[in-house]
This record gives sequence, C-alpha cells and structure tokens, in this order.
Amino acid sequence: MKALRWHGPRDLRLVELVEPVLETGEVRISVAYCGICGSDLHEYVDGPHAIPVDCPHPISRRRAPMTLGHEFCGTVVESADPGVRAGTRVAVEPEYRCGHCDYCRMGQYNRCVDMGFVGLMGDGAFAETVVVPSYTVHPLPDEVSYVQAAAFEPAAVALHAVRSSGLRAGDACAVFGMGPVGLLTVALLRQCGAGEIIAVDVDAHRLALAGAMGASRVVDATREDSTSAVLAATSGRGAAIAFEVAGEQGTLDGALACLRKGGEAVLVGLMGKAQVDIFDIVNRELRLTGSVGYRDVFPTLIAWTAAGRIDPSAIVTRKVPLAQAVPHGFDALLVDKGQVKVLVSPNDYLTV
Amino acid sequence: MKALRWHGPRDLRLVELVEPVLETGEVRISVAYCGICGSDLHEYVDGPHAIPVDCPHPISRRRAPMTLGHEFCGTVVESADPGVRAGTRVAVEPEYRCGHCDYCRMGQYNRCVDMGFVGLMGDGAFAETVVVPSYTVHPLPDEVSYVQAAAFEPAAVALHAVRSSGLRAGDACAVFGMGPVGLLTVALLRQCGAGEIIAVDVDAHRLALAGAMGASRVVDATREDSTSAVLAATSGRGAAIAFEVAGEQGTLDGALACLRKGGEAVLVGLMGKAQVDIFDIVNRELRLTGSVGYRDVFPTLIAWTAAGRIDPSAIVTRKVPLAQAVPHGFDALLVDKGQVKVLVSPNDYLTV
Repeated sequence: MKALRWHGPRDLRLVELVEPVLETGEVRISVAYCGICGSDLHEYVDGPHAIPVDCPHPISRRRAPMTLGHEFCGTVVESADPGVRAGTRVAVEPEYRCGHCDYCRMGQYNRCVDMGFVGLMGDGAFAETVVVPSYTVHPLPDEVSYVQAAAFEPAAVALHAVRSSGLRAGDACAVFGMGPVGLLTVALLRQCGAGEIIAVDVDAHRLALAGAMGASRVVDATREDSTSAVLAATSGRGAAIAFEVAGEQGTLDGALACLRKGGEAVLVGLMGKAQVDIFDIVNRELRLTGSVGYRDVFPTLIAWTAAGRIDPSAIVTRKVPLAQAVPHGFDALLVDKGQVKVLVSPNDYLTV
Repeated sequence: MKALRWHGPRDLRLVELVEPVLETGEVRISVAYCGICGSDLHEYVDGPHAIPVDCPHPISRRRAPMTLGHEFCGTVVESADPGVRAGTRVAVEPEYRCGHCDYCRMGQYNRCVDMGFVGLMGDGAFAETVVVPSYTVHPLPDEVSYVQAAAFEPAAVALHAVRSSGLRAGDACAVFGMGPVGLLTVALLRQCGAGEIIAVDVDAHRLALAGAMGASRVVDATREDSTSAVLAATSGRGAAIAFEVAGEQGTLDGALACLRKGGEAVLVGLMGKAQVDIFDIVNRELRLTGSVGYRDVFPTLIAWTAAGRIDPSAIVTRKVPLAQAVPHGFDALLVDKGQVKVLVSPNDYLTV
C-alpha cells in the first residue's frame, strides 16, 4: 500500500509499504479522507515535536519514520475484534490509551499517562490503509458523509473544550483564532446554548466563514481592539467565557482582557511560557482552564451531524489525492490563508 | 476617640478624632480587637497601594489620611439601622458594596464594581470606635470569643478560596504559604473533607503550627523539593488542588508542578506578572482559579467556631494595645517570623 511517511523536517516520502498483520483487538481501515492538521504542519516544517524518534511509543511501539495523519474516516476492511465487522463505515477517535492507569480507570482516557495520537506516535492515515485499535472506531450512520466524518477530530477538540468550560445557557462567549478548531468551536457554541458568540481573527475570509458557521459578531483584530469589541457586543459586561485557540501571547492577553469578573478562559492553543498578570486573575476572580484532546464526544458529534444540527464539513476547503498531498496540501496550507482544512484522499473518494 | 491613621509610608499617627455622626444604615462599633493584615503592612511600608489618595472612594467617600484596620470585631454602641441593636456583639465583614451593579444584583458582592475594604478604602478599626454600613455586621453567639472573631476576616479569605475550588471529598490538597490565610486554609480543608493536606513553607515555626492546625504533612521548602514531597504524600498521583497563598513566582511554579492531571491551582496570593507554562496547563488540563475577598462565608465561620469545629484564634500570637500597635505590631511583624497574627486592642480587651 502507498503511504506518506515523515522521515524528517521537510522530508515527507510517498512510499510503498507492506500492510502489517493485524494483532488481536486491531482493525484495518481503508482510508476515505484524512485531514491535514496544524500539528502535521509543525512536524513537516520543523519536527519532530510529538513524533518519537529515539524510543518507540509505549502503546504503538512505533517510532520514526512515521506515517502521519490523525483526522480520518473510512471503511473497515479487516477486523481482529469480533465486535467490529468488515464493511463498517467508521470515524476514528485517534487517541491511544493504556487502559489501566489511574486516568484510564477513571474514564479520563485523554489524560492517560501514555496517551498518544494515531498518526503522530503511531502510523496514521495519509496511506491507503491504516491499522488502529478497535476501541478507536465509531460506526457511522448513512446520514453522515465521509467528508463530514473527516472533520470530527478537530470538532472533538472543540467540543471537549466547550465541555471543559463552565458554559451555561445564554453565556456570552469569545473565540480567539478562526483555524479549524476555532471555527468548529463557534459552530458548537451555537448548538450548546451560548448567547453572543464573538469570533476574533486577523483574516477576513476566515471571519466570513465564522459568521456563516454561527458567530453573532466577527472582530478583525487588525482593525479593532478585541476587548472593546467584546464589551460593545455584551452591553459592557464582558464575555463569560473566552476560548484561546491560537496559541499566542497576544490572543491569550485578549482572551483574558475581554472577560467579565468571574469569567473563564479555556486554553486550547499550544504555546510555551507566557506572561500572565496574576494580580488581574486574582482580583477579577478569573479562571484559566486547559483543554487537550477529547473524550466521550464522538458519539455526540455523530448524532448531531446525522440530525443536521452541525455540519463539520463547513471547514473543508479542498480535497487532494495522496500523491498531491505535499504540494497541494501541506505546502498550500503554509502559504494560503484561504485554505482552512485540506482533506487527503488516499483511495478513490475524490469523486464521491 | 483615638485612632491610628495612615498619612504616608512609615507614617502612622496616633491621633484624637471627633467621632463622625451616623448616617442612616450605619452602625458605630466599639472595637474589641483588630488584626494586622499583610495588606496593612504593605500600606505601612511603601503605600499607598489600595488607599485612595487623590479621589475619594465612591462608596466610603473617604481618602487619605486613613485609619487602617479591617480584621475586627466589637460591640455595637450606636445604630442607625432598626435591625441592629446597640449592645450586640458583632464580627464585621468589611467589604463595601454598591448594591446595584450587575455583580451585586447576582449576589456576587465581592465582585462589586466599586468594591472596597473598610480599613483601606474607608476608615477602619485601629481606633476606639469605627463606623460601618450595617450590612457588614454579623451578630456573634456567646460561644464565640472576640479573639476568635477577630480572625474571621482572614478565615473568610481562606473559606472563600476553598469554596472557589472544585474540592471533593478525599481530594489531596497542597497549600503554599503558611501565613494567616494559608494556615486557616489548612484548618478549613480539614473541616471540608480534604484527604491529604500538605502544607508548604520555609519557616519551621509556621510549619509546626500548620501541623497543629490540621496538615497531614508539612514540607520545609528550604530542605526538600515541594513537588517530590507532594508526590510522595499522594502515592505518586499529585495533588488535586493546590492553594497559592504566598504570591511569589516560585510558589506559583510549585503549586502548578505538584498537581495531578486535571488538577486546580487556586490563586489567592497577590503578585504582578508571572511566567506561566501554557503548554503544561493545556497538556495536563490544569485549571487556575483566582479568588479574592469573600462572600456568604461569615455565617458558616461563626457557626463552625461556636460548635468548636474550627478555632480561628489558633493563628493569634500576640495582643497589643493601640498605643503599642506600631512598635509591637507593625514593626514586629516585619522582622519576627514567629509572629503570625497580632491583634490590636484599642479599648480594654487585653485583660478579657
């Protein structure tokens, strides 16, 4: 089978591989679509970041070279789990978990001490087929398309962030950063009873998409101050919750500044050390909540998509075959802000 | 009446003042005891910090020179509120509130847009008598002594911090900083169902007091690493909640480092900008919760003290008359780590 493998920074190779033999509890999936994630881009540009190079990952037992790709769906073509039948259309929740650490026992499997992602810490889905643990697959009803299902992974990050927050009906929310996760956060907040939903970004195209996906107010931070804009949209009160999905000092500052007293900033974007005004956090009784990965949200995403309550495919701007993934996918995303989510089709799904 | 007034840094003057005439809704209290708080020391050493100098405070309409002192109790000697009778023994919850802002309407009066403290933004209780709004007074049952009641204010900060957290029965808690609020946090956690209670400080005397007040483990941070000690005390799991009551970069780092995944750091100590590792907060799904002042906790403190479930007076290390407040109170606290809480007695309560 063909697979796109990471060998080093700026070194993705399309190679022919022998399909691995299934072990008990694994399934083989013929990949319909696999989205290119920001973390894939980071690995491509100047990795390794999450890819194990020296020691194999304790669950996948894999290390570089590695087939990337963790936002995917497809059809089960072979199963070593009696509970999963070949021919089943599935979305994949690509979190490896050990199953026996404290966190796994409590059901908090996204906090597993050995947690890793299929497609970063083990071979992923920029390939014709991929092998995953059967606990990662979720059967899809006919009403959910593969294009929609390929966007479930970033939607899961967004829904977990919303569920990590203390959101209550009618709460004014601000979302900083209209990448795929930020846009899906906007759409999910709309579905989860938020009041005003204020989308902040620096790109007009993405802000237009945010408006189409449910934002009640869009703020171009190159042209107006986000704090003033949020205050104006909330009768001077400030936001109850701000989602920081960009991972930058400036957006972190903006997310905290726009909050009302007692408000919460949910941190999703990754960055290193940042400056935080502790006096302000104490004095205004702010809360900062870290959110990583997801748990227990794929069934909800599938049900809401099947019912037409959300459409995760709204973020998809392009589909490319595997052979074109680097020039028209990875490289395009690095230079073209108009590209939001590019899906790679390793088989023949482009015409579907 | 005699009062100790702040005129500037290192300039506290014991002066004779005319007692102000009561306005409707005010009560005059003969002060039994008034504790010296860390914020009083800050004003004394290099204030003004919270004391209004140029513009009067919008609720108290007062500005410097100012009589300090906000941790107090005493006897009502005159009342302009029909609901409060002269002769009533009371503790005072010294938060001014406007009563009509969004936060006050929601009952979150410690977040009032004009919130200020009696004894910082208005004249306080380092004086023979003090005038306060009647909504600040809480009648004391006979079982509660004035020495205990004088410690309710720092105990209220501690109980509000505990209530601001997501504490659940059995949770392992670490407390960083064994000043009065940290010590009372330890005592209250014991009363609120915490599991392991790990007290961290750099002073042996204060750590001994922490042990006497309910800590299951004390950690001298000059001799051992707090993170290792918390892990050892929690079978390697880490603390569910850490209280940062020292207000320093090092203790903030320690409070975050000792947490289990999904753990919460409650920030009580005031400091300016700090460095925070956002990657770690996101990746371990940590939560930071700011807590300032208090609301709705004085009745609980009074009931628990009357029932013998807590004894806030455990932090009191010295009582001094008003005339000796500066040399034996303020100055002593600046140089003698053995002094935890010094109470000033402006009348004749020293012999009680």
